[in-house]
Amino acid sequence: MSSGVATPILSKPVDVAEYLFTRLHQLGIRSVHGLPGDFNLVALDYLPKAGLKWVGNCNELNAAYAADGYARVNGMGAIVTTFGVGELSAVNGLAGAYSEHVPVVHIVGCPSTISQRSGLLLHHMLGNGDFNTFADMSTPISCAVAKLTDPSQIANQIDNTLRECYLKSRPVYIMFPTDMVEKKVEGERLETKIDLDEPANDVEREDYVVNVLLKSLHSAKKPVVLVDACAIRHRVLDEVHAFIDKTKLPVFVTPMGKGAVDETHASFGGVYAGTASAPAVKDMVEGSDLVISIGAMKSDFNTAGFSYRLSQLASIDLHSDSCTVRYSEYPGIRMKGVLRKVIQQLDVSLVTALPPPKFQEIEGKSDPKAVINQAWLWERVDRFLREGDIVVTETGTANFGIWETRFPAGVTALNQTLWGSIGWAVGACQGAALATQDDAGKAKARRTILFEGDGSFQLTAQEVSTMIRHNLDVILFVICNDGYTIERYIHGMDAEYNDVMTWRYKDLPAAFGGTEETAKSYAVHNRGELEELLADQDFNDRKGLRFVELYMPKEDAPKSLILTAEAGAKRNAMTE
Amino acid sequence: MSSGVATPILSKPVDVAEYLFTRLHQLGIRSVHGLPGDFNLVALDYLPKAGLKWVGNCNELNAAYAADGYARVNGMGAIVTTFGVGELSAVNGLAGAYSEHVPVVHIVGCPSTISQRSGLLLHHMLGNGDFNTFADMSTPISCAVAKLTDPSQIANQIDNTLRECYLKSRPVYIMFPTDMVEKKVEGERLETKIDLDEPANDVEREDYVVNVLLKSLHSAKKPVVLVDACAIRHRVLDEVHAFIDKTKLPVFVTPMGKGAVDETHASFGGVYAGTASAPAVKDMVEGSDLVISIGAMKSDFNTAGFSYRLSQLASIDLHSDSCTVRYSEYPGIRMKGVLRKVIQQLDVSLVTALPPPKFQEIEGKSDPKAVINQAWLWERVDRFLREGDIVVTETGTANFGIWETRFPAGVTALNQTLWGSIGWAVGACQGAALATQDDAGKAKARRTILFEGDGSFQLTAQEVSTMIRHNLDVILFVICNDGYTIERYIHGMDAEYNDVMTWRYKDLPAAFGGTEETAKSYAVHNRGELEELLADQDFNDRKGLRFVELYMPKEDAPKSLILTAEAGAKRNAMTE
Repeated sequence: MSSGVATPILSKPVDVAEYLFTRLHQLGIRSVHGLPGDFNLVALDYLPKAGLKWVGNCNELNAAYAADGYARVNGMGAIVTTFGVGELSAVNGLAGAYSEHVPVVHIVGCPSTISQRSGLLLHHMLGNGDFNTFADMSTPISCAVAKLTDPSQIANQIDNTLRECYLKSRPVYIMFPTDMVEKKVEGERLETKIDLDEPANDVEREDYVVNVLLKSLHSAKKPVVLVDACAIRHRVLDEVHAFIDKTKLPVFVTPMGKGAVDETHASFGGVYAGTASAPAVKDMVEGSDLVISIGAMKSDFNTAGFSYRLSQLASIDLHSDSCTVRYSEYPGIRMKGVLRKVIQQLDVSLVTALPPPKFQEIEGKSDPKAVINQAWLWERVDRFLREGDIVVTETGTANFGIWETRFPAGVTALNQTLWGSIGWAVGACQGAALATQDDAGKAKARRTILFEGDGSFQLTAQEVSTMIRHNLDVILFVICNDGYTIERYIHGMDAEYNDVMTWRYKDLPAAFGGTEETAKSYAVHNRGELEELLADQDFNDRKGLRFVELYMPKEDAPKSLILTAEAGAKRNAMTE
Repeated sequence: MSSGVATPILSKPVDVAEYLFTRLHQLGIRSVHGLPGDFNLVALDYLPKAGLKWVGNCNELNAAYAADGYARVNGMGAIVTTFGVGELSAVNGLAGAYSEHVPVVHIVGCPSTISQRSGLLLHHMLGNGDFNTFADMSTPISCAVAKLTDPSQIANQIDNTLRECYLKSRPVYIMFPTDMVEKKVEGERLETKIDLDEPANDVEREDYVVNVLLKSLHSAKKPVVLVDACAIRHRVLDEVHAFIDKTKLPVFVTPMGKGAVDETHASFGGVYAGTASAPAVKDMVEGSDLVISIGAMKSDFNTAGFSYRLSQLASIDLHSDSCTVRYSEYPGIRMKGVLRKVIQQLDVSLVTALPPPKFQEIEGKSDPKAVINQAWLWERVDRFLREGDIVVTETGTANFGIWETRFPAGVTALNQTLWGSIGWAVGACQGAALATQDDAGKAKARRTILFEGDGSFQLTAQEVSTMIRHNLDVILFVICNDGYTIERYIHGMDAEYNDVMTWRYKDLPAAFGGTEETAKSYAVHNRGELEELLADQDFNDRKGLRFVELYMPKEDAPKSLILTAEAGAKRNAMTE
């Protein structure tokens, strides 16, 4: 077969790159993250004709974080890298997306199938003639891997891989050789969108689970609902809200589930995280005789160091691929179908719905000269946030602190509590802000607000340049507290290895090409200065980047972080 | 066994971390690169007592690049990362070290063996309970992997792994659980250094190869020597110089071999890279009836797109693990032993040594208002370099341009021509500069001079902060030519994806915490300004960072890059 010539069986031949990118567009993707590299350049030429924008990140790890953030807001994200050097730089970002169930399509431009067969020693190679090593390295962090080497298979491979990405809500890896870019595949397929419907549960088994669940629910005296990250990632938030609307059951979220539930809802009770919960929350959840847990991810950092005190005998766990009622397991039964039937069939008159614990708003007034400490900041942030804001928090004090912040309606919260890779939040913020900009079109995008630690910021700082390049509406707070505070609380409070170089953070946006107009910098050293800034109309409403140095004490952390860090330090040191 | 209690069989118990770090010190390592993470914190406490300095990089990829650069100058490097997030961020840097034969010890702090056995869902995990996934991902880019889980095996594992790292000159991976840090191992072993002697060749087979080689050498009419990267990495440069001193044979280097041979040596003939060579060099090497090739790495970028025109019938290839004479292969016969015997046994009176081609120095004078173009720059750099300088060049125009620069004696050249990961050079420069600082102690270190592209710089820019933090003596030229020039020549000369955001580069050192004293910035826009700067005494001799914006035209590249890029573009597009 020679390039560019359609085989007779194709009724509407299109080039492979056009096919792939058109599919991404159909899946709602409008911007593609990544960096150019010689093995992907020709493919990149096809982006504009598929209606896709090229982001052009500063490096591949940042691009992967950004594609992750984009996917969390948009529903799906994509990154293009180049063979070896590019893709391996992105691996940690994609591992995070795998770990946290975020659907990111990773397209890797690689040497031509001819070069591969002849075993050439090309640049970006290990020198062993093996062209599959890197794909193998990505296999454990991908829910599907496709190597596009045979044009007759490619359209099928692309459709199946993208479908897996969406349904499993995890990254996929597509190896795209340079000589396949312009091969022809059947374009007629593009007239039918990829079927993204979840496979239905087996009806008899599903009905059985629904019955068991309803029986428990109807007889429980103090039932509560606990919503976690997989409820967001596996797209059952509509079902969750319909369920609490109908039952009025008190509903709680885990730290990773922050933002899953409308926090202005009358049934919303707060954040449950074991010993780090507010006392009334802890009492209600742990005193419950039926915890309906939806999409749980019970990692150490999501449970304040495994400090849940819930009985399995009083638990129902609903997952994307299984359900568990007390000790009975139902593998293969997906929560979405179960929830829908439960909502339909439940008898409200039999449901006992206690009122959720009252949220204690702290006193707004405080000494304007006082330092901005963690205990004060996160409860103060409440009144700064607006309906619809996207709030990104970095691993560290921000990720724990935000548990204390009560959100307005429609706030989306992004955190990487399970994977916990510092630096993620800067990239994720870029991606999230771009997703809302893409979604808004020419209208005003939602505000994207990032709380970032100074230590973490140094890992991925240059992606601020990408925010400026694309005129993203971002409010970025760098918490200037002299290094890795979360590490200090685990080990080495005064250790040199927990220090970082002191940067002049607020000079960076200008060095990265920003102007007073596109990227304005601020610094706040005490509560009064912060209050003034948060009240400033221009700060709140202007477009582009607002970059704030937020000075806070070095040896200060949210209580929840301290509890979690103590548990971690003990676990690290434990010996037999 | 309980922590801290020696078993009776140990005569001088030391903690595992102390043992490991003492071994690194014995191997000549003085600084350890990396980032802290909760699974490595306790181990880091042991660095100072072993006489090791902690670098504290901005991110793990940069740290891996830096450890690579450190190893290239110092002989060996080390990086400490944390489980999952940290190690995976470093993977691309270590893959580069693997590809290019650079010995880097990668130590990964990981969860305790108890957490591993109980399958806990900790942060930095994929959520599948498998603690070996990340080690598996690093296996293809490590020449040895050690998982330290059994104290009775650990001292042996450490010694064997470090020995492999040195002898194979490639990265090793050491998985170090938190609960092993303080376990006791036999400290008496530390009184004997690890044996780093290369295993001797089988005498009879070695003698056979030596004889075949001598016969060819003595009968050749136009023999030449071609030195490549593995001659540097596998430590035969003394033998190479002894060989050319004795034979007076004309000697050439490949691009990756730059710096292997004293370029002021009477026998030095220049850089051979196929069609991209100077005509006299090409004629002599390709017209030779015996090319003795030492440590070859014949990748596309090292051969100007596979444009060597050498006959295997006229070739002898000496490698670290095999030799080939014409079509006869001798696997397992190492070049060092062979070279030593050849030097001893050769009969100078039978060797025909032609004079090397003359190097054409260009005219020093040129219009001071003229733009700094590639053709002019790299030949001008000759007169700026000093004996003993370390010259680091980034993948892109710099890496190809430097072929044209004739070095003073004792110059070390660092490039990553095979792996070719852009951004590498910033990290590598930090590592190289630290290695010479460590070596010099309180005396003056060698100058480390980096030629970096603006596109590449954006990937790893923040590591400039680490240069400042450690007061490294670095002269850093950022070639400001508006983006990825090497990509433009492969595909998409005017494509948006080859553009980068325009930064105010010279404002970065100050934003990263530098002062006029510790990090001075400059900008040069034409030849006159550059001449003036290069002649400036203070610029040449001051300590700390000198950061230069070097403006050059966007659509301009060294001839060698253009030839290589054309070959690559053709190979990418080739179809059946």
